[in-house]
Amino acid sequence: MIIMGIDPGLATVGFGIVSYSKNAFNALEYGAVLTPAHTKVEDRLEEIYSNIDELIKSASPNAVSIEKLYFNTNEKTAVNVCQARGVILLAAKKNNIPIFEYTPLQIKQAVTGYGRADKKQIMYMVTKLLSLKEEPHPDDTADALAAAICHAYSSDSMLFGLK
Amino acid sequence: MIIMGIDPGLATVGFGIVSYSKNAFNALEYGAVLTPAHTKVEDRLEEIYSNIDELIKSASPNAVSIEKLYFNTNEKTAVNVCQARGVILLAAKKNNIPIFEYTPLQIKQAVTGYGRADKKQIMYMVTKLLSLKEEPHPDDTADALAAAICHAYSSDSMLFGLK
Repeated sequence: MIIMGIDPGLATVGFGIVSYSKNAFNALEYGAVLTPAHTKVEDRLEEIYSNIDELIKSASPNAVSIEKLYFNTNEKTAVNVCQARGVILLAAKKNNIPIFEYTPLQIKQAVTGYGRADKKQIMYMVTKLLSLKEEPHPDDTADALAAAICHAYSSDSMLFGLK
Repeated sequence: MIIMGIDPGLATVGFGIVSYSKNAFNALEYGAVLTPAHTKVEDRLEEIYSNIDELIKSASPNAVSIEKLYFNTNEKTAVNVCQARGVILLAAKKNNIPIFEYTPLQIKQAVTGYGRADKKQIMYMVTKLLSLKEEPHPDDTADALAAAICHAYSSDSMLFGLK
């Protein structure tokens, strides 16, 4: 199963594509789509859409896993993150990839076993679970990989009727 | 000049396409894109995107006018409205239509002369300015037409250097 995790944002969209089979992970591709500041929101949304669309087309994931959004950031950032999330969902939908959403708590719990884990713990566990040589940066990339891992475990639970 | 005003939302996207020339308006087409409740957000976003894309292609507006978003609604609604707004901006951008954003205050001021006008006053003035036989419904359609009117007046001001 190939899973594409995404951490949405306007300036930085983290992505992480992993394969998962028999409890083993393989990180296929990961990084971040960056859009230039001081350019129009619609230009940045188009750039995000076309990059995510391309990544989906080349990786052909079985699922997209994305964090549920909560508003605890400032208002302007929140609007922009949601607008970016809208075009990301559209890109997945237009490519007929099923979308799965997880709360931050579910993702932290899945990756570290602890729902209130901090960024460092997540980074450590993502690096370990995926056998990466170096920690993935920026944080958004690590968070995207964590979302992918969360969906992998969650699918296992569904298969074995544990959920 | 043809202007397409849009009032974004997930359940209801109001739209209003007007032509404006020498201080006279003509309402070309207006209404709302409705998406069914209890369906997946990504399905609804795709429906909004494809409908707005079609409307833009058939009307060929010179500008899209859309309200700036502020978060005073409940959190879940806000996320969805912004996600919908993201795909609407994408549709305009992909069709190379310039996008103009106005605050609710600017729109009310432009249409009624009073920044704190209520829905009834906006409905009344939109109906009058566009010489409509009946008041446009739902509210979202009236708000979209108001956004279009606001951009028409604003463009005049820009032309005559009043802004």
